[in-house]
Amino acid sequence: MKALVFQGPGSMSWTDVPDAHLVDPTDVVVRVNTTTICGTDLHILKGDVPAVTAGRVLGHEAVGVITEVGSAVTSLAVGDRVLVPAITSCGKCGPCKCAMPSHCASVGGIGWIFGHLIDGTQAEYVRVPFAETSVHVLPEAVTNEQAIFLADIRPTGFEIGVQYARVQPGDTVVVVGAGPVGLASMRTAGLYGAATVIAVDLSEARLQRSLGFGADETINSGTVDVRARVLELTHGLGANVVIEAVGIPETFELCTALVRPGGNIANVGVHGKPVDLHLEDLWINNITITTGLVNGTTIPTLLDLVAHEKIDVGTFSTHSFGLEQMMDAYDVFAHADTHDALKVTISR
Amino acid sequence: MKALVFQGPGSMSWTDVPDAHLVDPTDVVVRVNTTTICGTDLHILKGDVPAVTAGRVLGHEAVGVITEVGSAVTSLAVGDRVLVPAITSCGKCGPCKCAMPSHCASVGGIGWIFGHLIDGTQAEYVRVPFAETSVHVLPEAVTNEQAIFLADIRPTGFEIGVQYARVQPGDTVVVVGAGPVGLASMRTAGLYGAATVIAVDLSEARLQRSLGFGADETINSGTVDVRARVLELTHGLGANVVIEAVGIPETFELCTALVRPGGNIANVGVHGKPVDLHLEDLWINNITITTGLVNGTTIPTLLDLVAHEKIDVGTFSTHSFGLEQMMDAYDVFAHADTHDALKVTISR
Repeated sequence: MKALVFQGPGSMSWTDVPDAHLVDPTDVVVRVNTTTICGTDLHILKGDVPAVTAGRVLGHEAVGVITEVGSAVTSLAVGDRVLVPAITSCGKCGPCKCAMPSHCASVGGIGWIFGHLIDGTQAEYVRVPFAETSVHVLPEAVTNEQAIFLADIRPTGFEIGVQYARVQPGDTVVVVGAGPVGLASMRTAGLYGAATVIAVDLSEARLQRSLGFGADETINSGTVDVRARVLELTHGLGANVVIEAVGIPETFELCTALVRPGGNIANVGVHGKPVDLHLEDLWINNITITTGLVNGTTIPTLLDLVAHEKIDVGTFSTHSFGLEQMMDAYDVFAHADTHDALKVTISR
Repeated sequence: MKALVFQGPGSMSWTDVPDAHLVDPTDVVVRVNTTTICGTDLHILKGDVPAVTAGRVLGHEAVGVITEVGSAVTSLAVGDRVLVPAITSCGKCGPCKCAMPSHCASVGGIGWIFGHLIDGTQAEYVRVPFAETSVHVLPEAVTNEQAIFLADIRPTGFEIGVQYARVQPGDTVVVVGAGPVGLASMRTAGLYGAATVIAVDLSEARLQRSLGFGADETINSGTVDVRARVLELTHGLGANVVIEAVGIPETFELCTALVRPGGNIANVGVHGKPVDLHLEDLWINNITITTGLVNGTTIPTLLDLVAHEKIDVGTFSTHSFGLEQMMDAYDVFAHADTHDALKVTISR
C-alpha cells in the first residue's frame, strides 16, 4: 500500500510500504477514505518529536471503512464506517476508566500513538489497536469531511480549551491564537453560554476568519495593546476565561495578564520551551491554569451536535486533495499563510 | 492605646497610637483579646510589601469583644465575642457575592487590608470595616486560642490548598513545606478523604511535627530524592494532589515534578519571583494549577468542626505572650527554627 513515510528530519515521501494488517486480537484494519494533516505532523517533520523515528507512517486522524476485524472484536464489523481518533484507548486501565485515555497506560502512558509510536493514518490503510474502545461508528448524517475534524482539533478545542477552562454562561472568553484549534475553541465556547468571545492574533486574515467561527470581537496583537483592550471590554476586570492556542512563552504570558482574579486559563498550545509564570503577581489572584492532551471523550457529543446541525462544520477545510496528492497537501499546509489555508482534507 | 507600629523596613515598635474609632457606619471597634503574627508580617518588616507605609499598625488576625458599633450595624452588638479574619468583605460587590471576598472591590480589589492598607490587629483595639459581613460571632465552645488560627492560616491551608486542589477520597496528597500553612493543609486533607498525606520539608523537626498534623509519610528533601520516593509510594504514577506551601521557585518546580497526569497542584505559598513553568513537559499532562489568597468563606465550617471537636486545634501555638510582650513575640517568631516555634499567641 501507499503511505506518507517520515524519512528523518526534513524528509518524507509518499511511497510503498507493507500493507497494514491485524497484529493483536483487539485490532481492526481501516481503509482510509479521509485524513488530514495536523500542526504536530509539521513539528515531527522538523525533528521536534524525537520519539518518531525514520520509517514511521505519519498521521493520527482518519475516517474510513473497516476491512478486517481481530478475533476478540465483537461490536465492530467489516464494512462499518468509523472515525479513527487521535487517541487510542484500551478501555481497561486506570486512566481510561477515569475518562482520561490521553494517558492510556496500555499504550505507554500517552494515548497519542498513531504516527508517533505506531504507523499512522496518512496511508491507504491503517491498523487500529484497541479498536472497540477507540473508534466511533459514524451516523449516516455525518459525512467523512465533517467527521475528520472530530478526530483531534475539534475535541481538543472543546475539551482542553472550553471544558478545562470551565466556561460558564455570561463569561467573556479570550482565545489567543486563531489557528485551527483556537477556532475550534471559539466555535464551542457558546455551548457553555459564553457571552463574548474575543479572538487575539497577529494575522488580520485569521482574525477575519474567526468572526465566522463564533468570535464577537477581534484584537490584532501586532497593533493593539491587548491587555488594555480586554480591560476596556470587561469593565476593567479582565476575562473570565483565557485560552492559549499558540504554544510559545509570549502568548502564554499574555494569557496570564488578561485573566481576572478568580478566572481560568486553559493552555491548549503545544509548547517546546519553559515559560515564565509570574507567581509574584499571580499567587494572590485565585486563578486556575490547566494543560492537557485531548481525550476525545466528547467525540460522541460532538457527533450528535454535528448530526443535529447544532454546531457548524466543514469550514475548517479550505483545501482538498486526493490521497496521491499527499505531498502537495503537506506543501500547502506547511505554508498555510501563503495559501490562506486553514486545514486540508485528503480523500480517496 | 498601644499598638505594634511599622516604622519602615527593619524597624517597628510597640508604642502609643490614637485610639481605634468608628469611621464609617458599617464599622465596629473590637477590643483585641488574642492576636498572632503571620509570615506576611515578617515580609512587611523586611520591606517586601511596599504598599505598607511607615506608621501602619500591623496584624490581620484577631479575636476580641466588640466595644462600639456603627449606626448601620444591626446584627452585631457591644459585648459580642468575634473573630476578625484576615479578609474584609463588603458583601455587596461582585467578588463578595461570588464568595470571593479575597478580591472585594469595595476595599480596592484585594480583601486583605488589615495591617496592609489600614491599621491592623496587633493592638489593644482595632477598627473593623464592613463588620457585619466580615466578622464571625464565636460559639461558646470555641476558645480565643482556638479561634485565632481560623483568621487566616487554617482557612488558607483548607481553601487554597485542599479545596482548590480538589482532594478526593483515596488521593495521595503531597504537601511541600511543613510550616504553619502546610500543616493546616495536612490537617484538613482528611476532610475530603485523602488516603495518604506526605509531608516534604528540609527540617527533620518540622517533618516530625507534621506527623501530629495528619501526615502519614515524611520525606526530607535535603537527603532524599523526593520525586523517586513519591513515585515509589504511588505505584510509579505520582501524586494526585501536590500543595505548594513554601513560595520559592525550587519548591514550585518540585511540585510540578511530583504530580501525576490528571492531577492538581495548589499553590499556597507567597512568591516574590517568577517561576519556570515547564510547559514543554507539562502541556501534555492534563494537570491543573491553582493560586489564591484565602477567602475565609469556610470559617463557619471550620468553627463548627472545631466546636464539635472534629479537627484538632490549639497545637499551632507553641509560644504564648502578653500584649505588652509583642516585641518578644516577634523575636521568637522571626527565629522560629531556633526556638522550635510554630505559631505564637499574643493575648491580654
